[in-house]
Amino acid sequence: MTAPGTTRGKFITLEGIDGAGKSTHLSWLEGILRDRGKTVIVTREPGGTPLGETLRELLLYRSQAMHAETEALLMFAARREHLDKVILPALDRGDWVISDRFTDASFAYQGGGRGLATQKLDELEYWVQGEFQPDLTLYFDVTVEVGRKRINAIKAADRFEKEQDEFFQKVRDAYLERAHKFPQRIRVIDANQSLEEVKKSVEIIILSIC
Amino acid sequence: MTAPGTTRGKFITLEGIDGAGKSTHLSWLEGILRDRGKTVIVTREPGGTPLGETLRELLLYRSQAMHAETEALLMFAARREHLDKVILPALDRGDWVISDRFTDASFAYQGGGRGLATQKLDELEYWVQGEFQPDLTLYFDVTVEVGRKRINAIKAADRFEKEQDEFFQKVRDAYLERAHKFPQRIRVIDANQSLEEVKKSVEIIILSIC
Repeated sequence: MTAPGTTRGKFITLEGIDGAGKSTHLSWLEGILRDRGKTVIVTREPGGTPLGETLRELLLYRSQAMHAETEALLMFAARREHLDKVILPALDRGDWVISDRFTDASFAYQGGGRGLATQKLDELEYWVQGEFQPDLTLYFDVTVEVGRKRINAIKAADRFEKEQDEFFQKVRDAYLERAHKFPQRIRVIDANQSLEEVKKSVEIIILSIC
Repeated sequence: MTAPGTTRGKFITLEGIDGAGKSTHLSWLEGILRDRGKTVIVTREPGGTPLGETLRELLLYRSQAMHAETEALLMFAARREHLDKVILPALDRGDWVISDRFTDASFAYQGGGRGLATQKLDELEYWVQGEFQPDLTLYFDVTVEVGRKRINAIKAADRFEKEQDEFFQKVRDAYLERAHKFPQRIRVIDANQSLEEVKKSVEIIILSIC
């Protein structure tokens, strides 16, 4: 519950396939919001709580394959804790929360990538979140080719990043389908553009909700 | 899918509050079934797979409290993997499976104990299992007082066992409610009786399905 006299904060999520540039834009975005006088909490999924970070290790770096439904249940378990311990209390305090990935990523990776039915994900989403949704989602869209080039350039791959191009194509398609379904909430940023152009696009969108 | 000419095995689950004596009866029960020519897989929840055992550690020995819904999602994540990797393949091969706890425990502990609504657990159960249920569940019923005396006598307490009597009373009530709801599947064994009397009750039930 938001305290009397406090305006509830806003919840912004960043989405995109690996190499789309979310992390690059995150700290810059945080700066814009702080400059506008917001208290900003930056977090990520899977993760964001001690339990969530343990589950992140299991989900990203475990070598044995798990069932797609197990993966989805673990993602939503981490999310339930994240909402309870971090996101909802912060919004109630009036803080703004930026999360590097949230539920759209489950639809993209476990749905599109692993082939789990959208209806099953809808059910889990409602089970965990009810009607709760981010106020704004920035989906950084890049082609699979560009995404792969960028991640190869910077770090060792996790369990998802080791997947093949076909997997990422399905993840991207699922993200685009999701953006098409929720055009008010999800804004698609063409992240194949130069860094400066992407920043300009993001800035216009963000300032419109501050 | 069960191979042609193979009779599908049966799935037996043991339930009860801590100290009800499930573990004591488990190896003895396994022996009865082997004597009747069955190939028997003994397993447990949470656990039963490498991932499930890791989740068991998180669920039973983690010091920080987690949200009841997070706990339920982790239990069902471990269960999804358990079904996929252990229980269903064994039943398809014609083996019998005995599990020390299964879904009724989620209704008893996360439902009764932690207060999670039965409907929410029904939804998760259906999400993970569809119509799948054990062929037989032996619920070892003891009073909270007897259960506590027995666990204090044998080992250090885990995160659930450290709960207060009121918690275990709610768990026991939920188990009894569940047994009342599914009288065909769940057989209530009065585990306040002597070991010999309990064994006799179990043997009659087991031999009736062999």
